[in-house]
Amino acid sequence: MNKIKVGIIGAGRIGKIHVDNLRRLPQVEIVAVCDRFTGPELEAWCAERGILIVTKESEAIMANPDIDAVFICSSTDTHVPLIKQAALAGKHVFCEKPVSMDIRQTEEAVEAASQAGIKLQVGFNRRFDHNFKRLHEHVKVGTVGAPHIIKITSRDPNPPHPDYIQVSGGIFIDMMIHDFDMARYVSGSEIEEVYAHGSVLIDPVFSQYEDLDTAIVTLKFENGALGVIDNSRQAVYGYDQRVEVFGSKGNAAVTNDYPNTAEISTAEGVYRDKPLHFFLERYNEAYKEETEIFIDCIRNDKPVPVSGMDGLQAERAALTAKLSSQLKRPVKLSEALQLAEQHSLLT
Amino acid sequence: MNKIKVGIIGAGRIGKIHVDNLRRLPQVEIVAVCDRFTGPELEAWCAERGILIVTKESEAIMANPDIDAVFICSSTDTHVPLIKQAALAGKHVFCEKPVSMDIRQTEEAVEAASQAGIKLQVGFNRRFDHNFKRLHEHVKVGTVGAPHIIKITSRDPNPPHPDYIQVSGGIFIDMMIHDFDMARYVSGSEIEEVYAHGSVLIDPVFSQYEDLDTAIVTLKFENGALGVIDNSRQAVYGYDQRVEVFGSKGNAAVTNDYPNTAEISTAEGVYRDKPLHFFLERYNEAYKEETEIFIDCIRNDKPVPVSGMDGLQAERAALTAKLSSQLKRPVKLSEALQLAEQHSLLT
Amino acid sequence: MNKIKVGIIGAGRIGKIHVDNLRRLPQVEIVAVCDRFTGPELEAWCAERGILIVTKESEAIMANPDIDAVFICSSTDTHVPLIKQAALAGKHVFCEKPVSMDIRQTEEAVEAASQAGIKLQVGFNRRFDHNFKRLHEHVKVGTVGAPHIIKITSRDPNPPHPDYIQVSGGIFIDMMIHDFDMARYVSGSEIEEVYAHGSVLIDPVFSQYEDLDTAIVTLKFENGALGVIDNSRQAVYGYDQRVEVFGSKGNAAVTNDYPNTAEISTAEGVYRDKPLHFFLERYNEAYKEETEIFIDCIRNDKPVPVSGMDGLQAERAALTAKLSSQLKRPVKLSEALQLAEQHSLLT
Amino acid sequence: MNKIKVGIIGAGRIGKIHVDNLRRLPQVEIVAVCDRFTGPELEAWCAERGILIVTKESEAIMANPDIDAVFICSSTDTHVPLIKQAALAGKHVFCEKPVSMDIRQTEEAVEAASQAGIKLQVGFNRRFDHNFKRLHEHVKVGTVGAPHIIKITSRDPNPPHPDYIQVSGGIFIDMMIHDFDMARYVSGSEIEEVYAHGSVLIDPVFSQYEDLDTAIVTLKFENGALGVIDNSRQAVYGYDQRVEVFGSKGNAAVTNDYPNTAEISTAEGVYRDKPLHFFLERYNEAYKEETEIFIDCIRNDKPVPVSGMDGLQAERAALTAKLSSQLKRPVKLSEALQLAEQHSLLT
Repeated sequence: MNKIKVGIIGAGRIGKIHVDNLRRLPQVEIVAVCDRFTGPELEAWCAERGILIVTKESEAIMANPDIDAVFICSSTDTHVPLIKQAALAGKHVFCEKPVSMDIRQTEEAVEAASQAGIKLQVGFNRRFDHNFKRLHEHVKVGTVGAPHIIKITSRDPNPPHPDYIQVSGGIFIDMMIHDFDMARYVSGSEIEEVYAHGSVLIDPVFSQYEDLDTAIVTLKFENGALGVIDNSRQAVYGYDQRVEVFGSKGNAAVTNDYPNTAEISTAEGVYRDKPLHFFLERYNEAYKEETEIFIDCIRNDKPVPVSGMDGLQAERAALTAKLSSQLKRPVKLSEALQLAEQHSLLT
Repeated sequence: MNKIKVGIIGAGRIGKIHVDNLRRLPQVEIVAVCDRFTGPELEAWCAERGILIVTKESEAIMANPDIDAVFICSSTDTHVPLIKQAALAGKHVFCEKPVSMDIRQTEEAVEAASQAGIKLQVGFNRRFDHNFKRLHEHVKVGTVGAPHIIKITSRDPNPPHPDYIQVSGGIFIDMMIHDFDMARYVSGSEIEEVYAHGSVLIDPVFSQYEDLDTAIVTLKFENGALGVIDNSRQAVYGYDQRVEVFGSKGNAAVTNDYPNTAEISTAEGVYRDKPLHFFLERYNEAYKEETEIFIDCIRNDKPVPVSGMDGLQAERAALTAKLSSQLKRPVKLSEALQLAEQHSLLT
Repeated sequence: MNKIKVGIIGAGRIGKIHVDNLRRLPQVEIVAVCDRFTGPELEAWCAERGILIVTKESEAIMANPDIDAVFICSSTDTHVPLIKQAALAGKHVFCEKPVSMDIRQTEEAVEAASQAGIKLQVGFNRRFDHNFKRLHEHVKVGTVGAPHIIKITSRDPNPPHPDYIQVSGGIFIDMMIHDFDMARYVSGSEIEEVYAHGSVLIDPVFSQYEDLDTAIVTLKFENGALGVIDNSRQAVYGYDQRVEVFGSKGNAAVTNDYPNTAEISTAEGVYRDKPLHFFLERYNEAYKEETEIFIDCIRNDKPVPVSGMDGLQAERAALTAKLSSQLKRPVKLSEALQLAEQHSLLT
Repeated sequence: MNKIKVGIIGAGRIGKIHVDNLRRLPQVEIVAVCDRFTGPELEAWCAERGILIVTKESEAIMANPDIDAVFICSSTDTHVPLIKQAALAGKHVFCEKPVSMDIRQTEEAVEAASQAGIKLQVGFNRRFDHNFKRLHEHVKVGTVGAPHIIKITSRDPNPPHPDYIQVSGGIFIDMMIHDFDMARYVSGSEIEEVYAHGSVLIDPVFSQYEDLDTAIVTLKFENGALGVIDNSRQAVYGYDQRVEVFGSKGNAAVTNDYPNTAEISTAEGVYRDKPLHFFLERYNEAYKEETEIFIDCIRNDKPVPVSGMDGLQAERAALTAKLSSQLKRPVKLSEALQLAEQHSLLT
């Protein structure tokens, strides 16, 4: 079987992680890297890794007949046009989340990929985390019976830079979108309705951009289960990523990973180190696995584990949460698009 | 200092627990026990414990000049009249929760106790649990900084008998009332608004009585913190009682107690026994402590740790949750009474 | 069934604990307390508990025909004579550990009790600890298969007072004796050989009395299992009491109890409170249970759970360890008495 | 700085792991692989990784002027001759443990490396484990004060194949050698004396080769600390690798790693998955780190973290334990060589 030839679009932090994770795979060859900001540094970095083509133009990637698949790691506003181009060019796509800030555009991208018959995987890396995968398996095989209550805690160690807050789309779309995907993943059901309430408790800068830094969202699922997600932009003890599924036959809970198991007992108390600091540490192996599986899906023509439709549904839930927070009432996902248009939330 | 002389009204399960816990205290003498269902069995039980007066008439307790304090452990509908009688008789009162099903009546009872200058302690036993007390201390001394998110999980091992469901007042008043009190206790703030959503996932009998068996309630506190309580009437692994307070300086979490620390590792996995089964096991020591402190408050004329006002505020939150669940929207505690009257929820 | 009437000999700390634990039992009446140091304080303490006879003379207990059972909580040198007297008087005996410092004397006491047909229970309270009981059950029902390795860690929070060190009999007899009993209890086998090595690492005062403050003892059991006990006179983080049984089918481990489950995560790390401080806290419930079971054995004529023979075997292991430590070689329990006589260790 | 060019001698399981771990490092180039059993399969495996030279002859590696360093991963009997050759050829050496079965030969190899001024790192991979490193740091910075008791548990999931048992050198040299190194590493002190006792409890095949499958060894360290190591050839629940250092200021304990944090609570109990299965899973990252640090030591001319002397000292302790087990008495490391010669243990 031939190697899968890959082009990377966007060589920021996450693009580089994908390059290094793909390099480990003998079945992959990274042909080209594209970034708005090329230069000697990026060129050296690529040369060191044996990547010969470094370009500013995504068209150079799309037009390259050698390339089987592209990784879209550029800014969110470029995702949909790039997916459409890749679809036209018949290249498989791995796209970072969110696909877009506008679910109508995301729908178009999903549709384009579907029409073209290319694979489109969305970068919900947490599905590949050893803890959440195990939780998902337990729910799937029925260990906890019918799910009744889903609880998701997701807190970042530090708030993002104000410049990023401004363009992030807000806590629901930028941060909680991962949790909406997780809720769907572990519950095995679609979200039907959300009620979001949030606050600015960490830094007034969030108010400045009409954003929130602390939020609790309750969920109703189509299968009858209830859920709750809590988000904070600043957990001083580090990245807090926990999920529980409570059901008719029991409870399955996963908690954080720690850098070591050392437990220190002294005259003052019992101590251990803080959890793994942030997503790069916590999801290090998950990032490897999501790309490895994507490559395997291409090589063996299997359906991708996180589809464009999964990306779309998480965005829909995020939009609904944003609406709920503004309207101060529970909102159904089925009414989100219409309400968003009424309230000009999509413009 | 003389012994405190106590009369017990209601010799059911919880009344008997109070008797045995009070018996351990050398500073207490149990003078009389009153119950609707007296008979040879109760008389023998009392005689074995050196309690000489066993009566059907609460008036016999109230009229007894020897008695300093009464424990009201009879059915909920009798609480308010008994508190009023005790207030008139100048006897201190320890009253089981809830004070009543009607916050207007509870207000009257609280007022009567206040006018008479008697102590009125409400039986929110969980405040005396070693775990929750420690959590409360940590929040109070500022270990976690300003509270941002309060999370309370409270699940019973088994649903109550259908006969009880019918008269229980529903999940919010019968079960979650403890959690509303806990929320106030650990947050150090009043609840301002709640949004309740619930479902019947365990047994259709709950629907029959217009009740729920699974519920998630989100809270806004006056100090800006957010909160969430989840309740289930049936956790097959036993009593699940966990609380977390997340704040600007960290997170404090308490979890369940287990009957032992034995950890078994075999070819199949790693095992331990289930948590302590139910409230009698889990709150065994807390029951002792709440009565010991009540007696101490009388002997040393100190304010009780759980006042009638605490009882009232928890009931108000429970009523608001019930309203929210029916109206399917967030409701402020300040509008609960009026809304309840509009919707005939108090009749 | 009539109440069991009890006399207490020795009203020090442990004697008083037994009084308060026995008082909870309706089936027990404490008739008399005997102590070398009676006076107004002890009399008041007894009066408060309704104990009418307070005496300096143990003969007054032994001669009292009302008394069914005696608790021997006086100093170790009085145990054997008192057991013999109780045997003559036909009174059941609960005796604190060790029965004596001389296994020949202990043998005599065990023999006297056996001849008289009285029950003799030795105060190895740890067998009644919730953790060790559960571990014992697991081994007994075969959860871990055939035991291969027994590991016991037992460390005190503080060294005893030098005055006590002098008369304690040394670390093996005073402290590790509990662990030898535990080793027999959880392994279900007799100890065959020990190798003890120890050191003075905490306080030179131990050297002054030819004692050790830190020791590791390896064990061979008759059933082929191996074992190891480690002791320290000073664990600054509190009482450290852990046991593991590793066998052909798995491992069973029990660890310490903590005062609460609160886990605090801050910018510095993750914390919890230290384990329960010392034996009074850790074995609080075990003390209750050992007396309750002793009373039950008398009332229902059942064999006691910790016999005089159990006391003897633990003493024999302790003596053997002391010998091994001095001879710097492994020693068999079967050769201990003869060796001890050769080396004048019993005089 | 130029790349470090590496030759691999021995392309079995561990040799291949080193290849894949070295491949990740841009500062390394793997020039050649040598193995007794070359063939199309190994050639393809090497080609896939861009390794051009595949040879049966270690001389081809030693004679290759391009090669800076060799990894000796061949059978134990070849280690010493190969180290000597590498020393002559001026190539740095990473050698798998044990250096040899005969401490006199190991001394010669260490001496040869020292004379030649090459770096010699021994493959005690566990020193690079995240848990043991953290424990070591805690001891080093004084978190637990002066070490008093070192406890090491090390159990394999399955016994090795009988063919391997025969040539393994026995449990002390084949298995416990890692723990002797760990004891030195975490205690920061040399081992002075050991007492070993062991048994055959798992499989009689061990007796056949005069080996043991279960062993407990107690240690005295030069700094006065005591220690104990327990080994089993078969822990059915998986790889059990735990270490504790107890000292004057507290206790530091590290335990196993688990594949995930999922905790399942059901009507039967509370479960989690078994620990990571064996050394490949548990020490996956440690293997990466030991090679990365070795390369760094070469590039920056730093002393290696695990020297030939460390290899020698662990072998000496293992030999002493073997002697102690046979002589059934404690043996000092300083008398081991002479005793071994007397008892023909080195032939």
